[in-house]
Amino acid sequence: MAGKIGIGVDIGGTLTKLAAVTAQGQIIREVQILTRSTESASLFVRRVCSLLHLLESELDADVGGVGLGLAGDVDSERGVLRFAPSLGRWQNFNFRKAFSRRLKFPVVVDNDANLAVWGGYALELRRRPRHVVGITLGTGVGGGLILDGKLYRGATGSAGEVGHTKIETPGRLCRCGGRGCLEAYAGSYGIVATAKALLKSRGRGDSLLKRLCPHPSKLEPSVISEAARRGDPLAREIWRKTGAWLAAGLANLVMVLNPDVILICGGVSRAGRLLTEPIAERMRAEPFRTPFKRLSIRIAVRHNLGCVGAALFALDASQ
Amino acid sequence: MAGKIGIGVDIGGTLTKLAAVTAQGQIIREVQILTRSTESASLFVRRVCSLLHLLESELDADVGGVGLGLAGDVDSERGVLRFAPSLGRWQNFNFRKAFSRRLKFPVVVDNDANLAVWGGYALELRRRPRHVVGITLGTGVGGGLILDGKLYRGATGSAGEVGHTKIETPGRLCRCGGRGCLEAYAGSYGIVATAKALLKSRGRGDSLLKRLCPHPSKLEPSVISEAARRGDPLAREIWRKTGAWLAAGLANLVMVLNPDVILICGGVSRAGRLLTEPIAERMRAEPFRTPFKRLSIRIAVRHNLGCVGAALFALDASQ
Repeated sequence: MAGKIGIGVDIGGTLTKLAAVTAQGQIIREVQILTRSTESASLFVRRVCSLLHLLESELDADVGGVGLGLAGDVDSERGVLRFAPSLGRWQNFNFRKAFSRRLKFPVVVDNDANLAVWGGYALELRRRPRHVVGITLGTGVGGGLILDGKLYRGATGSAGEVGHTKIETPGRLCRCGGRGCLEAYAGSYGIVATAKALLKSRGRGDSLLKRLCPHPSKLEPSVISEAARRGDPLAREIWRKTGAWLAAGLANLVMVLNPDVILICGGVSRAGRLLTEPIAERMRAEPFRTPFKRLSIRIAVRHNLGCVGAALFALDASQ
Repeated sequence: MAGKIGIGVDIGGTLTKLAAVTAQGQIIREVQILTRSTESASLFVRRVCSLLHLLESELDADVGGVGLGLAGDVDSERGVLRFAPSLGRWQNFNFRKAFSRRLKFPVVVDNDANLAVWGGYALELRRRPRHVVGITLGTGVGGGLILDGKLYRGATGSAGEVGHTKIETPGRLCRCGGRGCLEAYAGSYGIVATAKALLKSRGRGDSLLKRLCPHPSKLEPSVISEAARRGDPLAREIWRKTGAWLAAGLANLVMVLNPDVILICGGVSRAGRLLTEPIAERMRAEPFRTPFKRLSIRIAVRHNLGCVGAALFALDASQ
């Protein structure tokens, strides 16, 4: 087939997703496997490499590179996973070395949020704005910075950890062990915590959300969105609060980085205007106007940006 | 004399300082005048230009460029002051155009904190680290970002407004009109507010700080430093609190930008270890280690970095 393709591998705590992607960002094949992070990292590498070889021969494609996105703090120069609560056993493993030994194409390794934001930058924003703050809303909250059109990594490759900036003092306990982190309010577990607290404060009162989801342990952002779209005041209140917390974290980033665009990616972003409206409202109230005036807040419409971004980043790096 | 010199002009609400500086950062002549921002901006430009011509002929120097640092939000591309509480009447004035018309050397205009941080980067850090977050502690709190060895300005030139990131919710009222801004805690007026609140809570109790400064209206950071150095527990408590607030703001920046160095500039930084110790202590407690491990926190030892940085930046731009 014409043109090189990239293969993106998005390695999360539960699932690992692979996608073969053209340079234009079109997905030509997708597949997912269980991550099984309790097994050894070498075994995982062997499983993924078999799949990569299979994809390559099946597609009869010219693979330009493989990009690996890891849910954790990554030393992208060396290709090592340094810190990852959800991939604990694999810490300090050199993924680039292990994959490169088994593959004949170049391998790049980075934080999963960095690569998802790179994907959103390339496809949703067509690489036009110069400065973009990307935020990924899933179980956790990650981020990636595109400054002057390039992925910015910082001194140790840890830049863009938006989810662990503090928005409340002392605030809720975060998975990282800190208090008041944005993630503890805007990650899906934070949103569920807000929902439970509000439901509890309402006591025995009726609510559509309660009817849609009678078991609080089953609460998740998609149900809360559904209830809000059907007009439930309690569900709307949850999104209003979540949006205001997100706005607090994002306003700090705007003050510091003065981006052209904030790009919101990840599953929770499907809440759409339920989320962006309280953010925009809060930002309109900022007295220091200049950095907010030209700012545009965008929600990424594509799913699977983690894989796609990893594939595109690998293709970009191989050129 | 040998080599070109730059002239830096640091335009503050009260005073305007000028310095003629060699490419190595040596100040060869300094002078200051009253800003008088109630007069017209054109009159101010004429006054400064006369002084610049005087300096040029007196020093018999080859002037490579003039750098103007303005205490406010600056459109550095056009050279226009957009927003400045302390230079209110001069908002929307095009300083670059007005100066360029009267001078035969190139003129650059930027935010004063950006230029002070540039000076600190060039002289204190010898342009060695790649990524530096600079913070200027004076009446207000400003900041400048050096990313990949270059001054980062963002989409509208407003990047680095560290002083207006929020560290408390809702928090103290800031001069900008917002609430909870770092400046309201770590700017000199914020430090004085902390001191007054602590003195009040102590009631009639004795304190060295009270003896050194019997009139609360005369309180300023230098007196509080003096009392703390002489062992006054209340003064130490003021610096401990200020340092912890600063650390909260700076930790957020470290999470986002992952710099090699945080450089603290400005008059209040003379508190030295009274300030850096509580910052370091708080940062050691951050659970997300990687971005903090390699971080170095430095206090700029030179004064007048605003002028010197403006001069060096003008020289750099002219090359």
